[in-house]
Amino acid sequence: MKYSFKNDYSELCHPDILEALLKASNEQNNGYGLDKHSEDAKKLIREKLECDDCDIHFVTGGTQANASVISHILRPYEAVLACSSGHINVHETGAIEATGHKVYTAPGIDGKLIPDDIEAALKYHQDEHMVKIGMVYISQSTEIGTVYSEAELKSLYDYCKENRLYLYIDGARLSSGLAASDVEFNHLKDLCDVMYIGGTKIGMLSGEAIVIFNEQVKPYFRYHIKNKGAMLAKGYVLGIQFEAAFKNNLYFEMGMHENELARYLSNELKSIGVPLLNESPTNQIFPIFSKEQVEQLQKLYAFEIWAPVEDKIAIRFVTSWATSKEVCVELIEDIKTIIS
Amino acid sequence: MKYSFKNDYSELCHPDILEALLKASNEQNNGYGLDKHSEDAKKLIREKLECDDCDIHFVTGGTQANASVISHILRPYEAVLACSSGHINVHETGAIEATGHKVYTAPGIDGKLIPDDIEAALKYHQDEHMVKIGMVYISQSTEIGTVYSEAELKSLYDYCKENRLYLYIDGARLSSGLAASDVEFNHLKDLCDVMYIGGTKIGMLSGEAIVIFNEQVKPYFRYHIKNKGAMLAKGYVLGIQFEAAFKNNLYFEMGMHENELARYLSNELKSIGVPLLNESPTNQIFPIFSKEQVEQLQKLYAFEIWAPVEDKIAIRFVTSWATSKEVCVELIEDIKTIIS
Amino acid sequence: MKYSFKNDYSELCHPDILEALLKASNEQNNGYGLDKHSEDAKKLIREKLECDDCDIHFVTGGTQANASVISHILRPYEAVLACSSGHINVHETGAIEATGHKVYTAPGIDGKLIPDDIEAALKYHQDEHMVKIGMVYISQSTEIGTVYSEAELKSLYDYCKENRLYLYIDGARLSSGLAASDVEFNHLKDLCDVMYIGGTKIGMLSGEAIVIFNEQVKPYFRYHIKNKGAMLAKGYVLGIQFEAAFKNNLYFEMGMHENELARYLSNELKSIGVPLLNESPTNQIFPIFSKEQVEQLQKLYAFEIWAPVEDKIAIRFVTSWATSKEVCVELIEDIKTIIS
Amino acid sequence: MKYSFKNDYSELCHPDILEALLKASNEQNNGYGLDKHSEDAKKLIREKLECDDCDIHFVTGGTQANASVISHILRPYEAVLACSSGHINVHETGAIEATGHKVYTAPGIDGKLIPDDIEAALKYHQDEHMVKIGMVYISQSTEIGTVYSEAELKSLYDYCKENRLYLYIDGARLSSGLAASDVEFNHLKDLCDVMYIGGTKIGMLSGEAIVIFNEQVKPYFRYHIKNKGAMLAKGYVLGIQFEAAFKNNLYFEMGMHENELARYLSNELKSIGVPLLNESPTNQIFPIFSKEQVEQLQKLYAFEIWAPVEDKIAIRFVTSWATSKEVCVELIEDIKTIIS
Repeated sequence: MKYSFKNDYSELCHPDILEALLKASNEQNNGYGLDKHSEDAKKLIREKLECDDCDIHFVTGGTQANASVISHILRPYEAVLACSSGHINVHETGAIEATGHKVYTAPGIDGKLIPDDIEAALKYHQDEHMVKIGMVYISQSTEIGTVYSEAELKSLYDYCKENRLYLYIDGARLSSGLAASDVEFNHLKDLCDVMYIGGTKIGMLSGEAIVIFNEQVKPYFRYHIKNKGAMLAKGYVLGIQFEAAFKNNLYFEMGMHENELARYLSNELKSIGVPLLNESPTNQIFPIFSKEQVEQLQKLYAFEIWAPVEDKIAIRFVTSWATSKEVCVELIEDIKTIIS
Repeated sequence: MKYSFKNDYSELCHPDILEALLKASNEQNNGYGLDKHSEDAKKLIREKLECDDCDIHFVTGGTQANASVISHILRPYEAVLACSSGHINVHETGAIEATGHKVYTAPGIDGKLIPDDIEAALKYHQDEHMVKIGMVYISQSTEIGTVYSEAELKSLYDYCKENRLYLYIDGARLSSGLAASDVEFNHLKDLCDVMYIGGTKIGMLSGEAIVIFNEQVKPYFRYHIKNKGAMLAKGYVLGIQFEAAFKNNLYFEMGMHENELARYLSNELKSIGVPLLNESPTNQIFPIFSKEQVEQLQKLYAFEIWAPVEDKIAIRFVTSWATSKEVCVELIEDIKTIIS
Repeated sequence: MKYSFKNDYSELCHPDILEALLKASNEQNNGYGLDKHSEDAKKLIREKLECDDCDIHFVTGGTQANASVISHILRPYEAVLACSSGHINVHETGAIEATGHKVYTAPGIDGKLIPDDIEAALKYHQDEHMVKIGMVYISQSTEIGTVYSEAELKSLYDYCKENRLYLYIDGARLSSGLAASDVEFNHLKDLCDVMYIGGTKIGMLSGEAIVIFNEQVKPYFRYHIKNKGAMLAKGYVLGIQFEAAFKNNLYFEMGMHENELARYLSNELKSIGVPLLNESPTNQIFPIFSKEQVEQLQKLYAFEIWAPVEDKIAIRFVTSWATSKEVCVELIEDIKTIIS
Repeated sequence: MKYSFKNDYSELCHPDILEALLKASNEQNNGYGLDKHSEDAKKLIREKLECDDCDIHFVTGGTQANASVISHILRPYEAVLACSSGHINVHETGAIEATGHKVYTAPGIDGKLIPDDIEAALKYHQDEHMVKIGMVYISQSTEIGTVYSEAELKSLYDYCKENRLYLYIDGARLSSGLAASDVEFNHLKDLCDVMYIGGTKIGMLSGEAIVIFNEQVKPYFRYHIKNKGAMLAKGYVLGIQFEAAFKNNLYFEMGMHENELARYLSNELKSIGVPLLNESPTNQIFPIFSKEQVEQLQKLYAFEIWAPVEDKIAIRFVTSWATSKEVCVELIEDIKTIIS
């Protein structure tokens, strides 16, 4: 196997992250996130967000972040609205429902929700015989690699505020999502109530930073993540990593790097006549090959089979912070050979 | 502050663990624990357990391990029996109840349960108007630093098997617990249905290894930990650490080291006339000082205030894999000065 | 208001039921369903089912029955498959999710599932990153008044057994559903694992009889309904009612009566040119009127607005055990006047 | 068997209740509690409470009422404090924990909590590693037949308000509890945040009236009871009963009757030298007999075995709205014969 394009969490972590951990290896730190690194990391994130008063909590995985935030916000009879392709609906083995809440879905367009989806959901749920829609879940980038523009986010959030719904952004791939869109990091405080800044899929060992902008969501969240098994004894392990990622622009650069290589792959593939399932500006691209071509590619590279497309197959290539230009060039050369 | 004896998770991780992570920093690995390091770590643990067919799953924290195991085993109307000082009863912010199950408690003796406690609980719960006791939770070492002997574990497990109850051992501090008792690691397969081998409190960055001996508990556990938000995308980060800890005797040596220093402290304290709250053979000891002495100590060292004892105060010193003999000697010298 | 066709639970209960309650008013009975009336009612139901060894439990409402059965059968990571119009998906305010389980939906045809729907769901859910489909929920009659034939039920149940899925029938309107289909009551034991015989919507004060055919579902169900708040102290109130409904053919006759009047209405409506939304053979029919006609009808009768149909409106008429032929004749006369 | 003193729900319901149901048997009523009888019943209860603006909801059982109220009030990481003998702790098969919440217990005195119990619980729970006490659960009368005085309730509620805890009164036997204490029904609005007025154990077929005084608890409670499976389709069945019980003083008279007969039994038993386990002023009394005497009594009467008392046995006699003076006189005569 030459290389795996299966996902963006195949490699341990960025060297700067590892170095920061090494540097802290002789320290003693307080437990449960009450340490100086976590404090410093929060300060750095707040500065980049230009938001002094948001609350930040570090947890170790996306499902934990999602289940913790959603079950903290909703009352028992409330549901979260998501796009039917949304991660919480499809790929979390019922973790949201395990906290007692329905995930109500709208089809969306290109993996994204629009205000009309929310309006339809609200109209459909009119009385106490149905769940009450209490919040809206979206992700940036989405499950299929698309991104919301700042205008789209603003219109969603405006709609949510008018209708007393919380808006939550799953930022598992936020770095890549921001790099591919016109959304500014320091505008996010005005574009949602809560979000998480994903680390696991961006170049950290593990770790996601939940950022709470809305005052009403802040109280007792530390109780809630402990209750959900998401509070880490060695919380400083997460703090150290986010400190390293945000003390300069590392967090954002990793996403840019991913997107750049994915764009290189897209452009080359199109130029040699390989069709793509959709136009994804982020680090996931979905080229379409014949069954035989896929089998030949599988001898050289690892990747996910995505979906059948008529008699062909869409596969998924994911670039990561660690993917090199060289391996991408080699991939294109190998594909040229295969399709010729 | 000279040194913190607050707990055994103040330091990042043992150098061998960190080195193993470093060594893997240029690899690509499969996600979700389906990687070669995790496989290798499981093999090593199985060898040391002398048990070919146990199932092993790595998760990132003790509360996650406890909530995942307990909610996997119990039916909705069933409760887990624990000692009233048990971690799941006191220090997990209702994480077990959050999965729907009552924690029913018995007072126990020295932080430990005996078969009579279980018998009393079974007698008390006789029909469908009360919860059904479905399993028993203990920890080795216990919350107050005591340990079960092998004979005690055997008698508990025999009682459980006769009464169709599952026995689960929380091994957050298993390394220290084993080093202080006559329980052999390779006998544990015959002493419980499920246990977890704690990493976070023993010298790893994070990580606990859930070991399932009982066939009936094995099916679909991967679904269950995903449902509980406990499946890590970068599962190999845990695999690499357990591989390093079990490829030689590191895991066991760390506990021995902790206990040795704690024993040194106990003996010295007794020899200079400082009383101890109880006889703890593990890495937590509870000396009793006057209020003034505690205040002076607090200027030099960090530690937990444990409990008032008449007009004095019991405090807790915890030794870790990283604690040095030197710092312990210095502590005793400082205490001598303070109490003289 | 002349009459309400809003639903089939607007009237207290059938006179025979009330008389049975009256007759028992001077008795003392054991609590929690352990009384002679409940025993007798179970015996009568078992006789009519020709099934000696099914377990029967009485509860007070359909949502309680559904939530109790589903959460008893499923493990935490499992989901129930339902038609997207299914009652548990739409009209129980997230009661199933409140027990921790996802309701996964298939579109179905005419409110009914077919084996292909289940097959598609199983294919879609292949590993531990998605919920495991553990059971299938259907209702007889369905939410839109249609019914499964015996052949359809058999093919669904065969498919479920081959694929280790439990099949559960919500019989809120079972009496009407059986009367409109070729399904024999005494064949149901071979057509599902669990079902409930609905009383509330058929002419009882309240009460549903959960019938468990599958041995594996039987153990500890009394614990489970108590845990779900569904065990009634005065369980004999339910037993007395089911005794009265099953000591002769009352339960079945009430459904026949409902269907007969609904058929009368359908036929008359069609003969005077009023279109129907679908062909419902049971006690719910869905005629389509103009907005103005609906408004005039609303001055005389109560009914539900169902759905817009182009520029017209489908409404719902429900007949009950208490609906008389006279009131139906009058309704048709009034409609004739309105549409002329 | 001459008579059962096992409990106060052995008899169907008071004749006035049954007559009210009979009278309504030809009506059509709206479903889900939105009917004129429910409205009227609420009006009558509000008048007797001298409280215009409380919200009232009817459900069918005590466990449903308790689970619905507690899970509506608490956030996921919060616990309810109860006396260890409290019904929710002992006799609801984990129904509260099934909604995700810990029942934290205090020993109490005579089955009752005092402010010191709450203070101790609050002191013990100081940070996010432990549950947060969010509300206090008591019952009037208690599980062992004792009652709170108005001063005791006031001091509890004052303490709760000062400490931002909700106080909830389980009134399964409120009628008997009020009749035995100095607590006025129309003072209850100032003595708790929420309570329920029990019907099942007082002479109704079924039904409990949840009364919400605190504004913060009111919103969306109908959604919540539907989510918990506690909303009855034929809600008017409950409304009719409460209407009958509160249009005059029937509800209160039934409790007085019960207490009067229990007092008669207590006094007679004491006068013939039969000791009582405690001084219960309500409808449950606990005489102590030898094993042989209990066996002889069991041939004539049904009752619960309560607890061993040295070499003797405490049993429980419960009087109900339906118990007659004659049967009590006969019981005393039979006891005289047995003990002589």
